[in-house]
Amino acid sequence: MEKTIRILGIDPGLRRTGWGVIETLGNSLKFIASGTVTTDGQMDLASRLRQLHDGLSEVVHSQRPDEAAVEQTFVNKDAVATLKLGQARGIALLVPSLAGLHVSEYAPNAVKKAVIGVGHGDKAQIHMMLKVLMPKVQFKGSDAADALAIAICHAHNRGANRMMKAALAG
Amino acid sequence: MEKTIRILGIDPGLRRTGWGVIETLGNSLKFIASGTVTTDGQMDLASRLRQLHDGLSEVVHSQRPDEAAVEQTFVNKDAVATLKLGQARGIALLVPSLAGLHVSEYAPNAVKKAVIGVGHGDKAQIHMMLKVLMPKVQFKGSDAADALAIAICHAHNRGANRMMKAALAG
Repeated sequence: MEKTIRILGIDPGLRRTGWGVIETLGNSLKFIASGTVTTDGQMDLASRLRQLHDGLSEVVHSQRPDEAAVEQTFVNKDAVATLKLGQARGIALLVPSLAGLHVSEYAPNAVKKAVIGVGHGDKAQIHMMLKVLMPKVQFKGSDAADALAIAICHAHNRGANRMMKAALAG
Repeated sequence: MEKTIRILGIDPGLRRTGWGVIETLGNSLKFIASGTVTTDGQMDLASRLRQLHDGLSEVVHSQRPDEAAVEQTFVNKDAVATLKLGQARGIALLVPSLAGLHVSEYAPNAVKKAVIGVGHGDKAQIHMMLKVLMPKVQFKGSDAADALAIAICHAHNRGANRMMKAALAG
C-alpha cells in the first residue's frame, strides 16, 4: 500500500523565504499550507538569520513534513547578493535537516519543468499551473508559490513521472 | 569593577570552520581554547551544514562565551565558492545567536590590523603575533588561528567602543 508523503518546499531569501507544504499519494497532489517567513531589515544579520531559523522551525514543527526540498540558487548575481542569499540558504537547508528530514535540492529549470512542463516560463504560468495541479491551492505572493512549485518538483522526481502525467491528464 | 568577558571568534568555511575562545579583562588577553569543526565532503549539503551546526553548538555550550565575532567574507571569489561560503557563514552567525549572544562582524583587514598592527600581512605574522599577545596560546592550523585573531579583534574593538562611549558621556 502506498503511503502519503508530506513534502515541504522552501524558496530561500534573506528578506523573504517562501514555504509550501503538499501531500502526495500515488498520482495525487494535495495542497496543505503555504506562507512566507520575513526578517526585519533593521536588525543585524545574525538576528535576521535567527528569525529565519525560528520561523522555519515553527513551520517544520507545526506541519510535520516527511521530506524537504530547497531550490538551488542562481549564482550569476553580484557577489554581495550571492553571499546574502547563501547565508539564508544555509538556514533553509539546516532547519529541516535538524528535524531529521532528508533535504533534496533542485535547479530552478527543473522546478519549472516539473510544474509547467518546460524549463522556462514566467511567474504567472507557474501560478496558473499550481491552480491546475492543486485546485484548492492558496498562496500569497511569489515566494510561497515558488516554494509550492519546489515541493511539486520533489513529488515528481521522487515518485517518477507517472504522478505528473496523471495530474496533467486530469 | 571590570568584568571578564569571554569571546568566541569564528572563521567560517564549509569544509573547515575555525573557532577560538579568549578572555579579556581591561587590557589583558587570555587564551582559553581553540579548534576546528570539519564537515564530511561525502555527505549532502544539508547534512554538512547540520554537522557544522552541531559542532559549533557543542563549542558554545562547553565554552560558554559572552559574545561572538565572525569574520566578514571576501566576496571576490567565483560565485559558486561565494555561495558555499555564504551557507557555512549563515550557520556560523546563527549558532551563537540562538544561544542569545550578540554576534559582531569584522572585515579581514580590521582583524589583521587588530593583531599585527596593519591591515595586511601573511598567516605567519598572525601566528607569531598570537604567541606574543597570548604566550599560552595553542592552535592547530590556520582556521583556528584566524578565529583567535577575530576574537582578539573583537576584544580590541569592544573596548574602544566602550571607551568612546565613556569619553562622550564623561
